[in-house]
Amino acid sequence: MWHQAELTLRPRPRGFHLITDEVVGAVAELREVRVGLAHLFLRHTSASLTLNENASPDVRRDFREWFDRAVPDDTGYFAHTLEGPDDMPSHIKSSLTGNDLTLPIRDGRLAVGTWQGVYLCEHRDHGGPRSLLVTVWGE
Amino acid sequence: MWHQAELTLRPRPRGFHLITDEVVGAVAELREVRVGLAHLFLRHTSASLTLNENASPDVRRDFREWFDRAVPDDTGYFAHTLEGPDDMPSHIKSSLTGNDLTLPIRDGRLAVGTWQGVYLCEHRDHGGPRSLLVTVWGE
Amino acid sequence: MWHQAELTLRPRPRGFHLITDEVVGAVAELREVRVGLAHLFLRHTSASLTLNENASPDVRRDFREWFDRAVPDDTGYFAHTLEGPDDMPSHIKSSLTGNDLTLPIRDGRLAVGTWQGVYLCEHRDHGGPRSLLVTVWGE
Repeated sequence: MWHQAELTLRPRPRGFHLITDEVVGAVAELREVRVGLAHLFLRHTSASLTLNENASPDVRRDFREWFDRAVPDDTGYFAHTLEGPDDMPSHIKSSLTGNDLTLPIRDGRLAVGTWQGVYLCEHRDHGGPRSLLVTVWGE
Repeated sequence: MWHQAELTLRPRPRGFHLITDEVVGAVAELREVRVGLAHLFLRHTSASLTLNENASPDVRRDFREWFDRAVPDDTGYFAHTLEGPDDMPSHIKSSLTGNDLTLPIRDGRLAVGTWQGVYLCEHRDHGGPRSLLVTVWGE
Repeated sequence: MWHQAELTLRPRPRGFHLITDEVVGAVAELREVRVGLAHLFLRHTSASLTLNENASPDVRRDFREWFDRAVPDDTGYFAHTLEGPDDMPSHIKSSLTGNDLTLPIRDGRLAVGTWQGVYLCEHRDHGGPRSLLVTVWGE
């Protein structure tokens, strides 16, 4: 059983945003899978995906704080600055978290931990809508 | 062919720990797969998985040194500090390495490189037991 | 449908290198897949894979600049120095980006974004040839 769905995520400001419900809602076929996997793939290079704490908004705020310090907009040594000061840091932040996630499915549900949620990591100030390709397969 | 097994990893101190043998031992069905994949998924947000050098304990010690400096416990700017000074850094370190690994299988064995081993990255001082979900599929 | 191919990547200098065409060229079977996935796995611990901007060479240059600063060769606190000053940093850089990528396939092509390309991240000065295992499955 294979199913693939493309999802357009609405524009969000720079930061880390919970999108678990949006993703699960977009692939109703997930409920038919007894054992399988879901692959989430973000088709961009200046935004990314990660799995982390789904309860406290402070956690997502602190993520932004740390990433903005680890890869600052004003390093002075970046050559690729044509698309704005937030562009090159966005590429690097994207590769640090990665653009794809593979999540286990069991008995028609994502078998993730209680506290695990899917984050859209938007690294640009005005990233616009983002395209997410979800592939579900299993038996 | 699909197989899914849940594995409880015993509590380990903060640091990077080799768990390859434990993982392979938990899925005997791996030996029946001619070509396929194994997906390892850690159901937590303050511990993570990575693949790295399986020989020298110094490498795993140096991993801890670097990560503890890159994401220090005492940044001063983290807002999410309720669960202790090692909690918020654990979330960030987890997203830097990631919670899941997909490994190729060939002729009944993991087709990883000679020096590649699976690390459990325990980022908390007292993280407790950790739940790992292993999914094997192939032909 | 399963297909697995091993690819030897020629030696490259320390830095970030586009290898999308090489990878796609090595798995002609990809064209027969209507919906599926391609798993790319680098069998090393001092080089890694990531997906990022495929147009500007400046982006790849800036990647090297950032990674060389984030994990410097001369930290002074690394214990694993026997294999040269670029060895331990290579291990850490590899885990920051990861050794494997899973990419969606749709209608016989990689369904990645327009600007997404596969990077070989070579972290050693003289890493030699690198072995990449590509697994394609789908229907």
